[in-house]
Amino acid sequence: MVRAIEWVEADLPAIRILDQTRLPAHEVYLELSTVDDLVDAIQRLAVRGAPALGAAGALGVLLAMAQGRRERWNDMRLASEIARVRDARPTAVNLAWGADRAAAFLQEGPERVRHEAFAIVREDEAANHRLSDLGADWLLASIGEDRPLRIITHCNTGALATTAWGTAYGIIHELHDRGQLELVYVDETRPLLQGSRLTSWELTQDGIDHVIEVDGAASSTIMRGLVDAAIIGADRITADADTANKIGSLALALACQRAGIPFVVAAPSSTVDLETLSGADIVIEERDAAEVVALGGGAALAGTRVFNPAFDVTPHDLISAVVTERGIVEPMRGEGMQKLWAPAQR
Amino acid sequence: MVRAIEWVEADLPAIRILDQTRLPAHEVYLELSTVDDLVDAIQRLAVRGAPALGAAGALGVLLAMAQGRRERWNDMRLASEIARVRDARPTAVNLAWGADRAAAFLQEGPERVRHEAFAIVREDEAANHRLSDLGADWLLASIGEDRPLRIITHCNTGALATTAWGTAYGIIHELHDRGQLELVYVDETRPLLQGSRLTSWELTQDGIDHVIEVDGAASSTIMRGLVDAAIIGADRITADADTANKIGSLALALACQRAGIPFVVAAPSSTVDLETLSGADIVIEERDAAEVVALGGGAALAGTRVFNPAFDVTPHDLISAVVTERGIVEPMRGEGMQKLWAPAQR
Repeated sequence: MVRAIEWVEADLPAIRILDQTRLPAHEVYLELSTVDDLVDAIQRLAVRGAPALGAAGALGVLLAMAQGRRERWNDMRLASEIARVRDARPTAVNLAWGADRAAAFLQEGPERVRHEAFAIVREDEAANHRLSDLGADWLLASIGEDRPLRIITHCNTGALATTAWGTAYGIIHELHDRGQLELVYVDETRPLLQGSRLTSWELTQDGIDHVIEVDGAASSTIMRGLVDAAIIGADRITADADTANKIGSLALALACQRAGIPFVVAAPSSTVDLETLSGADIVIEERDAAEVVALGGGAALAGTRVFNPAFDVTPHDLISAVVTERGIVEPMRGEGMQKLWAPAQR
Repeated sequence: MVRAIEWVEADLPAIRILDQTRLPAHEVYLELSTVDDLVDAIQRLAVRGAPALGAAGALGVLLAMAQGRRERWNDMRLASEIARVRDARPTAVNLAWGADRAAAFLQEGPERVRHEAFAIVREDEAANHRLSDLGADWLLASIGEDRPLRIITHCNTGALATTAWGTAYGIIHELHDRGQLELVYVDETRPLLQGSRLTSWELTQDGIDHVIEVDGAASSTIMRGLVDAAIIGADRITADADTANKIGSLALALACQRAGIPFVVAAPSSTVDLETLSGADIVIEERDAAEVVALGGGAALAGTRVFNPAFDVTPHDLISAVVTERGIVEPMRGEGMQKLWAPAQR
């Protein structure tokens, strides 16, 4: 199984990452042994995906401590270098979350920080396995037919986006391991093609049958009855279960409702933001025009205006299930995310 | 105004087309003087768009006759070459319609066929202007607010897709000329980018404000209230008004229904196929994998399977209006396409 990010003790202590900008043509691992290396890798998306960035933030604190010992940084310098990691991508909340969680133990020394950073990695992996089990169980029970399922997904939610195993991808992988998966339809996921570049690469590594399609095909694939369910990840889930995810996800939700098949969101419970009540309160990040027009050596005339939102928000009434490691919420039936933290009912 | 297709009498009689695969970077005109040239141009989408293909079908009969005279084809050979033109793309009903209409006069000689083919070109241009007027009137009346409209569209339906002026694009152009247009959201339209390459190019030529977005953004643009209506063209409209159009159209229809805004189909009445009762009877053309994976120098691993349907079918209950030069049908209200040919009611 691929490890997109891990800690290694080579000549120098380092964060070893699989450079995602080179996939699928080249499998290049980089050993990042300085804060400069790490910040650069994060900013150019060599490492990406919310849970993977959480690990990058935590391991980044460990990295800064190691570099600081070599270069005899004082406490102020160390703090400022950790802040550079923390803020390398301002919109990536997991990055700051991971850095803060590890940095909280700075005074207790590198062993304690390492323990915390490794715990984040372990917990993410365990959560992914747990939610994948729950999600596969839920889907098989919901669809209730004893035949392998055909699944559609969007963007990348596999080992490359997490510390290991994956979220929506994890459920797909789990179905495969149970012999309950027939075929995966993978949206290419414009503008940055995380579907055709990354998810397809992971599925190939894992020996899972799949086809790539353009994002515009998703509605039709669903309404023609070619799939049994859609499964996506999430960047943020509000209290009422409105879900922000990669632009294009909403089209799948609308088509699933029309087709009467399950639309499932899979994410660790750390993605749930109970402070945000509904999708209307989510600010949608708009990214650079070049991502859209640079395609294929210049798709549009220079200077053409571009609207490039990175995410869309799927209203909770279109979501059959939100699957987390803490359990499952069924927003279509009126359940809110608070259910996951409610005292057990008897 | 650009002419995407016309008949020329150069060294050899030929169909002169603007090679749409080279836009927007290069404005290259090709003179097609053999059936091979024409079939190749149609199949690689150098000429495309339902109404333009109607003209290509009719002019193709004229072209086959000219080549046949040079190469002394017998009647059977001529008929089989015309059939090659007619069947060059399966979903495009206009291609067969144009070829059949011109070929009906085969026995009466080239002058009569030329007359018929030229009539098709003239009628298409007139139909586009007429339906654009009707469509603009209908939209302004439906939306009923006296402010410039924001429109979303998909693929290319302008002068490049027709003989002149355009269909969905024609309505947008008409709104612009009336001072009733604020902004156009143009889906880039993967895999071949007819939106960012062609529609954006035409809008720039015509001085119409617009932004390009990835196809995955369309549902969200509509549900966020950023547009007042969606207008698309059609490749085939069945008797009950189910509409086949470029893959990705269906996502707009589903989002418009949810947002409660008009979803309008604009096409000449020649696009209506009364012989086909519903969308379930439409065969969807599946195109080459290379269109999807060749993007940006190889988006996916070699050998990755691709699902590449060229069209989707929007069910009639999602369509607010089908606008043709013969009048308007409102499928959402239960109207069928036969209405256009019904004797006038009193």
